Amino acid sequence: MAAVAAATRWQLLLVLSAAGLGVTLAPQPPNILLLLMDDMGWGDLGVYGEPSRETPNLDQMAAEGMLFPNFYAANPLCSPSRAALLTGRLPIRTGFYTSNGHARNAYTPQEVVGGIPDSEHLLPELLRTAGYASKIVGKWHLGHRPQFHPLKHGFDEWFGSPNCHFGPYDNKARPNIPVYRDWEMVGRYYEEFPINLRTGEANLTQIYVQEALDFIKGQQAARRPFFLYWAVDATHAPVYASRPFLGSSQRGRYGDAVREIDAGIGRVLRLLQDLGVAENTFVFFTSDNGAALISAPKQGLDLTTAAPGHLPGEPSPGVVNLNLRPDSGWSFISTTVSVPQNSSSPTSDGPGREPGGQTCPEGGSNGPFLCGKQTTFEGGMREPAIAWWPGRIPAGQVSHQLGSIMDLFTTSLSVAGLEPPSDRAIDGLDLLPAMLQGRLMDRPIFYYRGNTLMAVTLGQYKAHFWTWTNSWEEFRQGVDFCPGQNISGVTTHTQEEHTKLPLIFHLGRDPGERYPLSVASTEYLDALHRITSVVQQHQETLVPGQPQLNVCNQAVMNWAPPGCEKLGKCLEPPESVPEKCSWPH
Amino acid sequence: MAAVAAATRWQLLLVLSAAGLGVTLAPQPPNILLLLMDDMGWGDLGVYGEPSRETPNLDQMAAEGMLFPNFYAANPLCSPSRAALLTGRLPIRTGFYTSNGHARNAYTPQEVVGGIPDSEHLLPELLRTAGYASKIVGKWHLGHRPQFHPLKHGFDEWFGSPNCHFGPYDNKARPNIPVYRDWEMVGRYYEEFPINLRTGEANLTQIYVQEALDFIKGQQAARRPFFLYWAVDATHAPVYASRPFLGSSQRGRYGDAVREIDAGIGRVLRLLQDLGVAENTFVFFTSDNGAALISAPKQGLDLTTAAPGHLPGEPSPGVVNLNLRPDSGWSFISTTVSVPQNSSSPTSDGPGREPGGQTCPEGGSNGPFLCGKQTTFEGGMREPAIAWWPGRIPAGQVSHQLGSIMDLFTTSLSVAGLEPPSDRAIDGLDLLPAMLQGRLMDRPIFYYRGNTLMAVTLGQYKAHFWTWTNSWEEFRQGVDFCPGQNISGVTTHTQEEHTKLPLIFHLGRDPGERYPLSVASTEYLDALHRITSVVQQHQETLVPGQPQLNVCNQAVMNWAPPGCEKLGKCLEPPESVPEKCSWPH
Repeated sequence: MAAVAAATRWQLLLVLSAAGLGVTLAPQPPNILLLLMDDMGWGDLGVYGEPSRETPNLDQMAAEGMLFPNFYAANPLCSPSRAALLTGRLPIRTGFYTSNGHARNAYTPQEVVGGIPDSEHLLPELLRTAGYASKIVGKWHLGHRPQFHPLKHGFDEWFGSPNCHFGPYDNKARPNIPVYRDWEMVGRYYEEFPINLRTGEANLTQIYVQEALDFIKGQQAARRPFFLYWAVDATHAPVYASRPFLGSSQRGRYGDAVREIDAGIGRVLRLLQDLGVAENTFVFFTSDNGAALISAPKQGLDLTTAAPGHLPGEPSPGVVNLNLRPDSGWSFISTTVSVPQNSSSPTSDGPGREPGGQTCPEGGSNGPFLCGKQTTFEGGMREPAIAWWPGRIPAGQVSHQLGSIMDLFTTSLSVAGLEPPSDRAIDGLDLLPAMLQGRLMDRPIFYYRGNTLMAVTLGQYKAHFWTWTNSWEEFRQGVDFCPGQNISGVTTHTQEEHTKLPLIFHLGRDPGERYPLSVASTEYLDALHRITSVVQQHQETLVPGQPQLNVCNQAVMNWAPPGCEKLGKCLEPPESVPEKCSWPH
Repeated sequence: MAAVAAATRWQLLLVLSAAGLGVTLAPQPPNILLLLMDDMGWGDLGVYGEPSRETPNLDQMAAEGMLFPNFYAANPLCSPSRAALLTGRLPIRTGFYTSNGHARNAYTPQEVVGGIPDSEHLLPELLRTAGYASKIVGKWHLGHRPQFHPLKHGFDEWFGSPNCHFGPYDNKARPNIPVYRDWEMVGRYYEEFPINLRTGEANLTQIYVQEALDFIKGQQAARRPFFLYWAVDATHAPVYASRPFLGSSQRGRYGDAVREIDAGIGRVLRLLQDLGVAENTFVFFTSDNGAALISAPKQGLDLTTAAPGHLPGEPSPGVVNLNLRPDSGWSFISTTVSVPQNSSSPTSDGPGREPGGQTCPEGGSNGPFLCGKQTTFEGGMREPAIAWWPGRIPAGQVSHQLGSIMDLFTTSLSVAGLEPPSDRAIDGLDLLPAMLQGRLMDRPIFYYRGNTLMAVTLGQYKAHFWTWTNSWEEFRQGVDFCPGQNISGVTTHTQEEHTKLPLIFHLGRDPGERYPLSVASTEYLDALHRITSVVQQHQETLVPGQPQLNVCNQAVMNWAPPGCEKLGKCLEPPESVPEKCSWPH
């Protein structure tokens, strides 16, 4: 009997062990993979009508998944939109805005003092409670000071950079941007991580692809559900690609970057399929804001003198002046670029400079939409978007749900079986009903610049309360966010208030925002009535966060990131002089 | 033995009979179905990136066939482009142009005296030699006088109309446009074939679909190879749809028309499949010119006084003045439209008029391309194009072959096993190598207005020798062929000559024609060199045809078309007064 009892106990153990194994092998929470592009436009994918059709992997992803043609960024600029993705909240709530000027776009260059507040709950923090391992690959852009480090906000791993890949700098007036592995920097752009501005060659996308593949394999081997936030930036100026992709596109260097990313995404999705986890992985592809359209000044423009509102602490002579306000539209401008003597990329031309001195387009396409990045027209915030989850999301479908990048927060929680925080306003919707049951949910899209509500879309109607592209001063100097698309009374160069009588467009008949509805029409009055009520409700309950992008200080730049000692790459910061950041548009 | 011999003879007869049956059932020359749209733009199909994605049948056709994103009309206006399709020759060769003014667009309103010359060999004439039965359904537009009748130029059947569906007219100053069945008229638009300008309701697309289905079934039953030229016009202003489709689109009435056509094409392709002849039918879908972009005058404009260059013989009071030069861009303009007292469509608003008096867009989309119909920018001549031939043309492919509507002539002949005429210049290429073997053939695309070569595309480079949209006079009156897309130095309102130093664009990097290459760049000089040589060769060998669109005469209008006696619908023509036609742009 004892033997029998022992056998039973052992058998019980076996059963328990198998059950335990069963728990491990049984459907664990689905993996979550968010593929976030940088400055990629709605019109950049073959499936969205790009004429060269150079995105076979993304087109295939759409054929196997669901396309969202009415999907929006949370802001026409990168940092606020990325903060919104990871918090599910409008930048006005998280503080990712400036109040230094009216309706100004702001982001996180390395002199910005602010970043993501500790009080915000980020997606990886919440997913951790459900056992997820989280990694960010690529651009963080939610603040570069120690307290804003992504591993302090829920991510377990990081390979990438806190700021844009602008440079090269001289490491005196301005340090080069660091590249991190997890807690510590492992080098800097233009140093250990070269980007050749003349040829456009850089291997970064290849590294980012490998990081994704390795992370997925590792988590799969460990049988842990994962959240991978793949935030590549090759399509952000200065645009780059690795050697096999350079010159491979019909669209120039920007197209080379798109092709390399497309190929990388193909490899990642194939790996999911090869590992047999595709049906347990929710994948979403989108971009942080619209394509940066190219400013084409008639003559070469010296930005050193032309740039209004530049920061205190000029780069020293011999440095690329173009990077003074690099993410604010200047970076495409044909200008005289000089390079530090010690730089390894000898060039007297900026990126995208034609041999003859002509500006060469290096931006993407916003398809039929008006203007681009920096603006609250459709070209600034309507994004390509594809959901992919084989076996769950039906293949080859189109959803006309109005979607937002903030929905990726709420939807990812829903995928993981979690509820969004109930102690704060969450702007993101759970899109699973749209994806799985084809439901359409009424919801507004809010378009902000700074703390100014510029426009609202509800259903097919978009109302502009304010219109502005940039100042006459900038425009006369050749900075144009709507090149070849100026519409009188719409793409205005003074800040025009329309709060009493908004400009209203029907985005179905008029996706290019060219023909405002007549204010005397019933259609106008009906749309105005419905939108006004939504705006009132929004504004009555809105509690703006403490603005994070108001204060700048040269001393907070990436002088001595963690890990710099080991590399011997610590730099001496200047004296701390906090100043109001100046945002020109 | 006699019995055996008899049996043998009978058996022989059986064999012969079977062989005869075999001949009948054996692969006969493939059927040819050309689906030609009217004023539909590159960006109007889901597969080309239209945001509302309302063309599931055309998108499916593309998924089962081959997409040509670089496919061109032969002219930015309908008549010349249609003449080019059916002859394989540039309008400058066939005479489908005017020399009354420099670089003027001309077509075939009912006062035009000219039409397709007898000396031209039309596709159905040539296909007849291979045993094809040919039918045209819809708009002919190659001349409406008796000698130009489609059944005199190779077609066996016709249901449709010689001119655009403008109207209603008063049948005094101007007759309503007749609708023909084969040799004789069977009624007139706005009379037996109503179009309600207020609601946009008309059943014409339904009739055209039924005509196509019946013809296909009939030829299949008779086991004759067929050529069907399906030239519907619901997307040409005034845009119309039948009741089930009205209001069904997110894009307004234009979208309703697109949806109805898309559904019709779905029915036609399904019939081919159901009959088992899909694999023996070559189908090609394209459009005659770019989408007509909407002119949006700031205030209501009375075209009666505003129209420059109007024809002699003003419509009498009470007639829709908008139709004075209806196909020339005016028709979208918000204007005061009045209707004859006896009209059955009581309305005081023109098509597309908002309740508040605002212009409502009724045109299509040219996607990322510049301007539209009437212009030689990409929006005027780049067309959606899909080839479909299950089992022959591989599914889901994209060809970057530069294609032309004139290629449909040569390709159709090739499909039928015929050679193009050797006694004249043929501009159309045989695209079968591109379709069946994926070959890419070097060839130029010529962009003409009248007899002026405005631009040439070769590979990725497009050189403009002349730029012009329309006159300042027209533009100031509110006529704009590039609304919201004016580019300084490119979309000019004076005729700008660049023959010595063309504006050159790289259509891959810059599909929107916004950034001319620097004339000092090597890239510019290389492109110029190659294009110049092609243009020289073209111009040295060019023999312009006798211009057909120079002379107008009120007496040649559709007063008494054949068959009018039976219907009691013959009208009295005015005195014959030939005059030079006046083409404003």
